[in-house]
Amino acid sequence: MADWEKKAAAKRDANLAKIPKEWLLPSEFQIGDETSHESVLDIPAKCGILTPEEVVVTQNFDAVSLAKVVQVGSLKAEGVAIAFCKRAAIAQQLTNCLTETFFDDAIKRGKWLDEYLAKHGKPVGPLHGLPISIKDPFNYTGVQSTLGMISYLDQPAAKENSALVDILLDLGAILYCKTNIPQTMMTADSHNNTFGRTLNPHRLSLGAGGSSGGEGALVALRGSVIGVGTDIGGSVRIPALVNGTYGFKPTPNRVPYGGQASVSRRGSPGFPAAAGPLTNAFEDLELFTRSVIEIRPWDRDATAIAYPWRTETANAKPSKLRIGYFEGDSQFPIHPPVRRALESAAKVLATAGHEVIPLQQAPSLETALGLSTDYWSLDNQHTSIQHIKNGGEPIIPSLANQGPTLTKKEAGYSMDDLFEINVKTGAYKASWNSLWVQNKLDVILCPGAETTAVPHDTFGIPPYTLVWNLLQYPGIVIPVGKADKAIDRDSLAGNDWKRKYKSEDIHGAPLSIQLVARSYQDEELIAASRVIDQCLKIADNTGLQK
Amino acid sequence: MADWEKKAAAKRDANLAKIPKEWLLPSEFQIGDETSHESVLDIPAKCGILTPEEVVVTQNFDAVSLAKVVQVGSLKAEGVAIAFCKRAAIAQQLTNCLTETFFDDAIKRGKWLDEYLAKHGKPVGPLHGLPISIKDPFNYTGVQSTLGMISYLDQPAAKENSALVDILLDLGAILYCKTNIPQTMMTADSHNNTFGRTLNPHRLSLGAGGSSGGEGALVALRGSVIGVGTDIGGSVRIPALVNGTYGFKPTPNRVPYGGQASVSRRGSPGFPAAAGPLTNAFEDLELFTRSVIEIRPWDRDATAIAYPWRTETANAKPSKLRIGYFEGDSQFPIHPPVRRALESAAKVLATAGHEVIPLQQAPSLETALGLSTDYWSLDNQHTSIQHIKNGGEPIIPSLANQGPTLTKKEAGYSMDDLFEINVKTGAYKASWNSLWVQNKLDVILCPGAETTAVPHDTFGIPPYTLVWNLLQYPGIVIPVGKADKAIDRDSLAGNDWKRKYKSEDIHGAPLSIQLVARSYQDEELIAASRVIDQCLKIADNTGLQK
Repeated sequence: MADWEKKAAAKRDANLAKIPKEWLLPSEFQIGDETSHESVLDIPAKCGILTPEEVVVTQNFDAVSLAKVVQVGSLKAEGVAIAFCKRAAIAQQLTNCLTETFFDDAIKRGKWLDEYLAKHGKPVGPLHGLPISIKDPFNYTGVQSTLGMISYLDQPAAKENSALVDILLDLGAILYCKTNIPQTMMTADSHNNTFGRTLNPHRLSLGAGGSSGGEGALVALRGSVIGVGTDIGGSVRIPALVNGTYGFKPTPNRVPYGGQASVSRRGSPGFPAAAGPLTNAFEDLELFTRSVIEIRPWDRDATAIAYPWRTETANAKPSKLRIGYFEGDSQFPIHPPVRRALESAAKVLATAGHEVIPLQQAPSLETALGLSTDYWSLDNQHTSIQHIKNGGEPIIPSLANQGPTLTKKEAGYSMDDLFEINVKTGAYKASWNSLWVQNKLDVILCPGAETTAVPHDTFGIPPYTLVWNLLQYPGIVIPVGKADKAIDRDSLAGNDWKRKYKSEDIHGAPLSIQLVARSYQDEELIAASRVIDQCLKIADNTGLQK
Repeated sequence: MADWEKKAAAKRDANLAKIPKEWLLPSEFQIGDETSHESVLDIPAKCGILTPEEVVVTQNFDAVSLAKVVQVGSLKAEGVAIAFCKRAAIAQQLTNCLTETFFDDAIKRGKWLDEYLAKHGKPVGPLHGLPISIKDPFNYTGVQSTLGMISYLDQPAAKENSALVDILLDLGAILYCKTNIPQTMMTADSHNNTFGRTLNPHRLSLGAGGSSGGEGALVALRGSVIGVGTDIGGSVRIPALVNGTYGFKPTPNRVPYGGQASVSRRGSPGFPAAAGPLTNAFEDLELFTRSVIEIRPWDRDATAIAYPWRTETANAKPSKLRIGYFEGDSQFPIHPPVRRALESAAKVLATAGHEVIPLQQAPSLETALGLSTDYWSLDNQHTSIQHIKNGGEPIIPSLANQGPTLTKKEAGYSMDDLFEINVKTGAYKASWNSLWVQNKLDVILCPGAETTAVPHDTFGIPPYTLVWNLLQYPGIVIPVGKADKAIDRDSLAGNDWKRKYKSEDIHGAPLSIQLVARSYQDEELIAASRVIDQCLKIADNTGLQK
């Protein structure tokens, strides 16, 4: 066993030891590994670890309704904390979605919240009593932020909280675990040499997405009511779409990003990442974002933008939307089930009276892909690769497979290069803005990726999400059904597609659509997406969508 | 005569020929040149070119009241256009503040606006009938944007308007002239080899500031009711403070910046410049900014931020402000009259019941100066210097004197340098933000510069304005009086000051204070500054301030 393997094993053993014995999954429920085609979604409810009440608490409420019952005192925060700690522990054993747990903190905090409510007759804040999971890079005092890097395993525990962690605590949330990510966070398989690989609970042989893949799996298993991810190329939205959850990447720095651990070099002149929520219900995206912004994150984090939440705009119920329909870029053909989901949504929305406007003149995604990977590669020191080397660990297959996303230009980038990249990006942004304005769009409907969840290590670089990071547009992923090999037949795919399609491989994978608005129009995006989500739900319930 | 001199002379002659003969200043009013110590502020009213009504129209109204009388039909827009064209022509002959004039367009437009109002019974927009001058880099169709560069003199006229120019026209403004700037726009003397040097109307031997120096002189002479400048280190606020006008540098990209001519290389990864107004009355700053933002500039310019104007916040009348009092950085000692203005303002504000909180722990301005000049120098091709060389013209003394602001590092900047500069800037921003939050500030009161207007070519690099550009904080300059050699005696200055102080040189120069808020708090800044402006005016009128 190599030195790094011993270190990693020790870390995993220490983490496993923190899970109470009575929460360990009986062997009959340990049904598979990354080669298994099973779903594990039903195991938490039936494995016997959760009481019947805990099953109800964890899976019958969304964040909005759970907050309500805790805040009126109908449910105890302590009980909620225990239920979610247990369910997160189960999720961990099924999909390897966690990095760190601090269940004792959470249960104590639940108790304190109950006392606070009893004493003051009012909740600590709008997230009082809500269990919220956080991606590994968020610092939580007393817990390591290793990012799964072997070379970070010797680092001490965090001495202070990330700005967002402080805010969530001030809002009344219960924090109890951190979630798994890919090595370097710059690929869509949440796999690293310390914590291993996160599996997709819908089908273990499929990837859980990345880089917030632990969140995707945990939220899908209802081991968390709101998961906080980060996204610089799709890292909130990809885990959402492959795990069938909602996901929201706001305009960067509206939700505060400061004070996180990182493997990337600080000070990049590239475009910023954004923090955002993954949830099982649409309104939970709004609850999280509004609550965080209303506490004035710019007072806690100099990188947060002082842009108050526009409640009225976010709550508007536009009756007739102008929906730009971006059916995809022929260079990046979208797979049959993804196309079905998209076309079906467009049809439902048109039938409901919204204007669906095909965007035939959309700027090329190839351009966005080229520019984004340039920005990601600007660090000529290749700091994140260096951190891998420092640990003596190998590069994970997912990162190796996707080509040089972080070290694109062998000779390194000059200042001249950067001026040129910025000029091209400016022109690219102007093209999208013109398209938007000419068509008087409220929102764009588009795929979230070419594919659904795919077998491990094959997701690759995601043009349909990174384009909106480059533009700094907010994006929301909404789940809309499942891939079905009987409908989404192999024969519907092109022979010349670079990403091969095999319906058998992805049968049962969740389907999603992506909705997008221009920079800072997060409230407009929430309002339009709410209308669209409700519209699609009605269609689904009445069978109209099929 | 060198080739470039001939070209420049031809351009100046062609421009002079556009001024109607009857608007040429009689020789008895051509009282001086850049060595004269006279004020020319009273000449427009007494030179006989303006009718008595035109004198009233140009000097008795601010933008808010002028808009009102034109929009109710009491004054004709055509007459207003003529009056301001004439006064701008006079200002040009006194201070050399203009680059281009398009008086015929303006007078035709005035007529059209009158017809529109008569026909529709309502104005075109909130700026209907207001004469607005624009800095040379703003493109106006059919007119050159030479930026005073010899190498640009052969370029054709602009084929389309800058985004802001389109917006001002849509809002009903009358555009009639463009104003002078320094060679490269990166120094505070508005002097170039094509158009020459702009003089300070308060005293011709003093600089008019820069880079929007033409606007400063023109607005001070009431040849314009609102002047539009741009600011990446103080270029709106310095002309305002040396010419005794109001000036507002908003948070970058709230007022749209797109579609301007430039000598700098496009695509800089440095911090952005901001466009903003110079005026003779406080409320005019608000009128301009609100009107421009309410028309949704982000629909015209992909670089404009979709951040609606928060009317309620901007109109709030906070009765007790928490004012951070930044008395200056000992490394950059402020001159006696500037200190008097500042201390007097602080005293008046404290007496009026506001909390004035000295900021003894303010981060060093040296750091801001170092970082800003790094960002300004990132172009290793030295594009702007190259443009100078291409014209065969010499570098102007002001630019040569201030040291290498654009070419700071001989070896050029690497990507590693930029990462480091960004990290340092992040830390610097965090320090200011902490200071702000710890002291619960509403606004910071500080000097706008070490000095008042100073003799030509001696202004130098401005730490007290550039710091807020680096931080992307909005800033407002408010005029508060005049330098007086009897009060602001030489003996009050330090012997070791790098910037020598001579009270005789600057006697009669306007005094100002600067007010600042955090990024995107433009509305909060407007609200606080209004209260402060009124407070200082009351004190001034009642003699309290002395």
